[in-house]
Amino acid sequence: MNMYDLIVKKKRGGELTKDEIAYMITNYTNGSIPDYQMSAMMMAICFQGMTPEETKDLTLAMAQSGDMLDLSEIEGIKVDKHSTGGVGDKTSLVLGPMVASLGVAVAKMSGRGLGHTGGTIDKLESFTGFHTSLSNEQFIKNVNMIHMAIVGQTADLAPADKKLYALRDVTGTVDQMSLIASSIMSKKLASGADAIVLDVKTGDGAFMKKLEDSIALAQAMVSIGKLAGRKMTAVISEMDQPLGNAVGNALEVKEAIETLKGNGPEDLVELVLTLGSHMVVAAEKAETLDEAREKLELSLQDGSAFETFKKFIVAQGGLEDEVLHPEKLPAAKYVEEVICEEEGYVSKIQTEQIGRISLLLGGGRETKESEIDLAVGLVLNKKRGDRVLKGESLATIHANDLEKLELAKQRLQNAYTIVKEEVKKEPVIKKVIYTY
Amino acid sequence: MNMYDLIVKKKRGGELTKDEIAYMITNYTNGSIPDYQMSAMMMAICFQGMTPEETKDLTLAMAQSGDMLDLSEIEGIKVDKHSTGGVGDKTSLVLGPMVASLGVAVAKMSGRGLGHTGGTIDKLESFTGFHTSLSNEQFIKNVNMIHMAIVGQTADLAPADKKLYALRDVTGTVDQMSLIASSIMSKKLASGADAIVLDVKTGDGAFMKKLEDSIALAQAMVSIGKLAGRKMTAVISEMDQPLGNAVGNALEVKEAIETLKGNGPEDLVELVLTLGSHMVVAAEKAETLDEAREKLELSLQDGSAFETFKKFIVAQGGLEDEVLHPEKLPAAKYVEEVICEEEGYVSKIQTEQIGRISLLLGGGRETKESEIDLAVGLVLNKKRGDRVLKGESLATIHANDLEKLELAKQRLQNAYTIVKEEVKKEPVIKKVIYTY
Repeated sequence: MNMYDLIVKKKRGGELTKDEIAYMITNYTNGSIPDYQMSAMMMAICFQGMTPEETKDLTLAMAQSGDMLDLSEIEGIKVDKHSTGGVGDKTSLVLGPMVASLGVAVAKMSGRGLGHTGGTIDKLESFTGFHTSLSNEQFIKNVNMIHMAIVGQTADLAPADKKLYALRDVTGTVDQMSLIASSIMSKKLASGADAIVLDVKTGDGAFMKKLEDSIALAQAMVSIGKLAGRKMTAVISEMDQPLGNAVGNALEVKEAIETLKGNGPEDLVELVLTLGSHMVVAAEKAETLDEAREKLELSLQDGSAFETFKKFIVAQGGLEDEVLHPEKLPAAKYVEEVICEEEGYVSKIQTEQIGRISLLLGGGRETKESEIDLAVGLVLNKKRGDRVLKGESLATIHANDLEKLELAKQRLQNAYTIVKEEVKKEPVIKKVIYTY
Repeated sequence: MNMYDLIVKKKRGGELTKDEIAYMITNYTNGSIPDYQMSAMMMAICFQGMTPEETKDLTLAMAQSGDMLDLSEIEGIKVDKHSTGGVGDKTSLVLGPMVASLGVAVAKMSGRGLGHTGGTIDKLESFTGFHTSLSNEQFIKNVNMIHMAIVGQTADLAPADKKLYALRDVTGTVDQMSLIASSIMSKKLASGADAIVLDVKTGDGAFMKKLEDSIALAQAMVSIGKLAGRKMTAVISEMDQPLGNAVGNALEVKEAIETLKGNGPEDLVELVLTLGSHMVVAAEKAETLDEAREKLELSLQDGSAFETFKKFIVAQGGLEDEVLHPEKLPAAKYVEEVICEEEGYVSKIQTEQIGRISLLLGGGRETKESEIDLAVGLVLNKKRGDRVLKGESLATIHANDLEKLELAKQRLQNAYTIVKEEVKKEPVIKKVIYTY
């Protein structure tokens, strides 16, 4: 077997066998296959595509290129959730404690944010003392006790994906559906979960801007997971406006806490209930999606979700006082309103732009080395479809720098489109695909 | 400008500008653009193709990546001839002296052979003392006096093509028409000729096996040359059987000498007259193709072509005695016939296989370092369409090794297909494309 023949086979539209894909990934990871051959292969795949079988084989080969986590010491069915990333996406902060409060084991390995979307660990570090450097024993103990723990990515998960992604990133071969799906799923399969619930964002603030592409990506990932023996759900959710109202680390934590207390914004609540129902059913903590949903709603009303959140934060070094009094979380020096200059309805919010404004204020990372300002960000007071009067506040900006504040105000003004005619509100859930 | 954007542009079917192509080639040649980006670009080109304008720009950028020969000290219009390579292709040995005898300046830079096709310089080295290491002054003086000289490739011609070809060779991106055409033409354009006559071989023994591909390649090369301001001709000639009868270095020289004396095999004579007519008209040594052809025929009959050949060989160190008495050229120890075992007509001669038999006997190079045995080879006594009787000789093998002789006999036997029905002879010239 040699890489040249595999490139030519794929170029001519052939289907690579499991052995051929394993050969390719093993030898690329260990350096025997050079980058210039792999990039030719990736480009050929962009044109010829991959079958579901090939995509599954590629994903498994990449998953097996490094550590495969063993979560067998954790009791019950392990359910992992993954979001393709969006603006104001504090889903994990709410969803984790909710399902954990019903006994679902949430054993999560999380990354940090980069670019215009934030990372869960960054947000949680708004709590003084909170950390994710748990030993393996502590991690498992916490999950078994509280049903929830989050660690930073320490294991060498899917190094083949890491190397391949870096290559695709500089050779114009990122935007191929099978390659995107296998990249995401290789890390999920290496993380040891029995069931995987995917939140595939669609719209301006998402990686996938078009609904049909998001559905195709969701289907590709579900297909991989199913072929690899996992219970799979993919929820396609809207990212044509930020999720909820808050964007920025501590601001999102505050919104998450409000949501856990039963006072969350409609779209966020609907999304966590939908994702959560599938997690609860997959974990066999409810028979039906309806039963799961009822239990989850109750967990928000009776305080059990919030209680789990508090235990989880405290178990990982955070201050209980800050959970109970989120006003003590980091706060920005300057808080100013963005005033609407005309009357009408919000027809569009440039979502990626909102993410970039938070980034500009210091709330995100431009590069891996950037320091994050946990206090800054913005809160949207009007969302799509809302009626707005002249002089009303569109959004509130939280800044620690006056120059950035001014720039952010201008940009936020421009990110909103106000029209005269009434605008229909779109549901947050676009589609749900699941395999059980 | 950056390579990433250019890859994405081409991947999406865009047309690269002259500046973009120049940027890409300059920076690839100097190492700033890495192989892995260029191989992704080459694969994208395999799928999206290149326009004639892009192909011309690529060719010129590669031509200008190294030395550009200046032949201005040579009088008259410089005409270069290039063959895409075939088996038994001694065309240059005959064509050069023919057109030179009519005053056309033949200033040729030639390479050596590799694989199953031979190189002109290898063949000429059958003459004791013949060499191609002429100084620039000597080269120009010879062309101005005898109208013909051949040097080995000393200049750094089109290094970008060299680097790019090596990359394409290992990334499955060789077989794209624009890339093949630009690779050949970049070296031709760097060689300084005003007019270029291409002999594009088609068939089993050629690089292009299918007629339509050969025509497409010819058209692509003619288009590049025309856009670059050269007078262009492409003759598509058949390579579904070896050209003439002899295959092997000294054997081909002997056949060339016979042809220069007016006793050449039909297909070879027809090909050199066709190619030659275009060279003579391009060099303005005749008004029409018919006039050129008449003059060339005369040069074979009146001995002037042979006379020029003799002067050319002697001027580059060869022995006049060997030109006058080609039986003194290297000869093999063993000369044996391959006997036909059935009666019928020759319907097929596996041409690439014939080239490989010559290689096996020692007449060619497996690798760049191989030593060539000038004496060995084979002479076909029957060509396609010929009637053959049981017991007649199909071919004569010239070998210096008994084991190889036996193997060659067997393989030659197998290379011939004999059928009962009469077989039509095909014309050697399939098509001629020219721009003036």
